[in-house]
Amino acid sequence: MLLGDSLTERSAAPFGLSQLLSDAYIRKLDVVTRGFSGYNTQWILPVFEKVLAKRNERQNLAKIQLLTIWLGANDATLPGEAQHVPLEAFKENLSKLIRMVKDPTSEWYSPETRIIVLTPPPINTAGWAEFLRVYGNPPRDTTDRVFDGPKTYALAAKDVAQQEGVVVVDTWTLLWEAAGEKEENLMKFLCDGLHLSSEGYKLVYDALIETILRHYPEIHFDKPFMAYPAWTDLNGANYMEKLKDSSVRKAETKQS
Amino acid sequence: MLLGDSLTERSAAPFGLSQLLSDAYIRKLDVVTRGFSGYNTQWILPVFEKVLAKRNERQNLAKIQLLTIWLGANDATLPGEAQHVPLEAFKENLSKLIRMVKDPTSEWYSPETRIIVLTPPPINTAGWAEFLRVYGNPPRDTTDRVFDGPKTYALAAKDVAQQEGVVVVDTWTLLWEAAGEKEENLMKFLCDGLHLSSEGYKLVYDALIETILRHYPEIHFDKPFMAYPAWTDLNGANYMEKLKDSSVRKAETKQS
Repeated sequence: MLLGDSLTERSAAPFGLSQLLSDAYIRKLDVVTRGFSGYNTQWILPVFEKVLAKRNERQNLAKIQLLTIWLGANDATLPGEAQHVPLEAFKENLSKLIRMVKDPTSEWYSPETRIIVLTPPPINTAGWAEFLRVYGNPPRDTTDRVFDGPKTYALAAKDVAQQEGVVVVDTWTLLWEAAGEKEENLMKFLCDGLHLSSEGYKLVYDALIETILRHYPEIHFDKPFMAYPAWTDLNGANYMEKLKDSSVRKAETKQS
Repeated sequence: MLLGDSLTERSAAPFGLSQLLSDAYIRKLDVVTRGFSGYNTQWILPVFEKVLAKRNERQNLAKIQLLTIWLGANDATLPGEAQHVPLEAFKENLSKLIRMVKDPTSEWYSPETRIIVLTPPPINTAGWAEFLRVYGNPPRDTTDRVFDGPKTYALAAKDVAQQEGVVVVDTWTLLWEAAGEKEENLMKFLCDGLHLSSEGYKLVYDALIETILRHYPEIHFDKPFMAYPAWTDLNGANYMEKLKDSSVRKAETKQS
């Protein structure tokens, strides 16, 4: 499950994060996209309480093997903006999201769910200001975020993840370093100064897969789990036996 | 839920059917891809019995709003091939798949699930023969299917769908007509003579959406149902109320 804001919601598009994962994990794990454009951690909290099944609601539901939490980009808007969440509240909210899953006393406790926190990516302030001037709803001449915003919230997200003992993919540093630490070079990885381009998503995807391989190799897509046998193994009269063997359909989900 | 063979399994790739639907239905409906490369209707039947929840297993599971069944391409291989299913058996199997969902006495009865049958697409025999010669596993000089195969099975699938009272997207005729009824022109819509190219998937996607609009307009992606409000509606102290209002999260699924 991918929990997040527009960076997640838009990622079902070709070469977005959700799309790349869906393709890589076909017949292995379903990718469930729970991205909500514009949302901050404050608004996501009650939503996550709804989209995540409680312990007593999980009969016949697929287990969530991996949860990515990719938030902070909107919290990091300037104070006074509707989306802004103060840094301390952001940290607290992120902790809450993690503890909903990790705390044994939580109604949503899910010990089998691995969590990876993604930090908010860096922005190109000139690109985003231009976007707001032309396409803002309504168009506006003032910006709603500055370069240091996501940088600060990315650091905070890393701190929280470390505190809570969960794994991080630091997309802020990843893209910043890929851009040679030059703000203008970021436009290669961003489509409008804020949202990711295909190239941006590719970097994040590669880093996420590498992180899965390092920390959770048992769910790397190369591991030999696949829902139902390859058709070339079904030739013959005993195909029903092979299709009934649960060992060959570990990843089956029954999700809908 | 998209049930099918490799035409479905591969369609989570960029510009594939599953990908296009996932993007169009983001925050509206989850797309669950259940494609199994090489499978015919005979092998799919026991699989469908596993991947579809039974009536008594559905507690807290999302309803399947739409089920597409896209099979027959492998049934239509030549007699003697491992994947071949005789025409009459194919028709019977397709009926069984439909009745699993539609028959009130079925363990898998799901009156709220709309079904659309997709017919197998036409093939370019020279392209596919070449593929088998070079990339076959193992490479082979004889082909495993002929032009008339999917044509015949497509007609049969249409018959069965009509008999069972479910809607059809006739991808065979769609692609054939788009190719000006010339086999060589089909290569625009096929990547190897058998599987669809992005252009092929685009035709199928457009036809499917048009069919949804005509027969099931209530689940066309343009209908104003979206999981949770737009963030611009959350500004203000009463955001919790808005996030709790079930009328704005009709499409929420809790699938995993």
